[in-house]
Amino acid sequence: MKVYIEPIGRLINEFSKLPGVGAKTAQRFAYKIINMKPEEAEAFANAIINAKSKVKYCSVCGNFSEDDICDICKNRSTESICVVKEPKDVIAIEKLNEFNGVYHVLHGTISPLYGVGPNDINIKELLSRIAKGGVKEVIMATNPDVEGEATAMYITNLIKPLGIKVTRLAHGIPIGTELEYADEVSLARAFVERKTL
Amino acid sequence: MKVYIEPIGRLINEFSKLPGVGAKTAQRFAYKIINMKPEEAEAFANAIINAKSKVKYCSVCGNFSEDDICDICKNRSTESICVVKEPKDVIAIEKLNEFNGVYHVLHGTISPLYGVGPNDINIKELLSRIAKGGVKEVIMATNPDVEGEATAMYITNLIKPLGIKVTRLAHGIPIGTELEYADEVSLARAFVERKTL
Repeated sequence: MKVYIEPIGRLINEFSKLPGVGAKTAQRFAYKIINMKPEEAEAFANAIINAKSKVKYCSVCGNFSEDDICDICKNRSTESICVVKEPKDVIAIEKLNEFNGVYHVLHGTISPLYGVGPNDINIKELLSRIAKGGVKEVIMATNPDVEGEATAMYITNLIKPLGIKVTRLAHGIPIGTELEYADEVSLARAFVERKTL
Repeated sequence: MKVYIEPIGRLINEFSKLPGVGAKTAQRFAYKIINMKPEEAEAFANAIINAKSKVKYCSVCGNFSEDDICDICKNRSTESICVVKEPKDVIAIEKLNEFNGVYHVLHGTISPLYGVGPNDINIKELLSRIAKGGVKEVIMATNPDVEGEATAMYITNLIKPLGIKVTRLAHGIPIGTELEYADEVSLARAFVERKTL
């Protein structure tokens, strides 16, 4: 039985494609759109088209960019390169206001299980950036999971022989948690990597 | 500090306007759009524009409709009119496949607290539909909350003197929930066991 009229059904279907959005939530989103003013709905639709057409990837680091080269690559020293899996990781780190170097976005991690090898992610682009000289430190900021660790290790083995300092984000128990509730792997890691005070 | 480039920031801002969507979720949605194929993103944007421009309200019952008069009003007997608060309640009831009559969408409920009086919702439209004759039963299917009950009572007092049977959904629906979210079994049961007021 046809419950929704076509334009609503179609919109619900589109919203269902978003991550974590089920039928009920998609329906709520669709109602919200229908209750918007026409110019609001138009602004929404335009933002989608606009983002899709204007957002490119920086030809140097692979981060999101409106231009051929992103603002970070344009304005910052290339002494430190922070290697991340995805553009959203750049944003997570930028929010900290801690790091003043540039990034390199791999657009994936090595994952034999899913058939992703070293040549499928932007590793050789990283190597050619380093080959240009001036890089003093490469910070491996891939996710602390199996693929992230393996990728960090793989890249480290390629770069270290070049005499460049390679670092990895520290692992351990997250700030603010109670020891009792920390996951065992992180706790074990925190023990192994304990530091002298 | 500007963390997002403009097109992404703008899209995240638009997604944040959806109900229950916070900054993190809006960001995930935006990334999903950016990772879509151009034609997929375009279809998404078009679905928004399309829904906003094509979805009108039926001039008879007030339900969502593509035409001046909705399919339900066009094709069904007007012997029973089911009175609901919002178009989404029509969909919730239609999904049951229990009711074969027509609807009347009030687009609100009487709520003195929010300054919504009987003239602010589609009550007089309901009365003029009834005045045309042929209506044998009016089913009050407003939400089982204070405003919904008050509205049902108010309309009942107007219609009952006309000699028309007025029924209310049985309280198989747990008090305090919204019709849209009631489980289908309870909602169906409430339909079957509707009682004369």
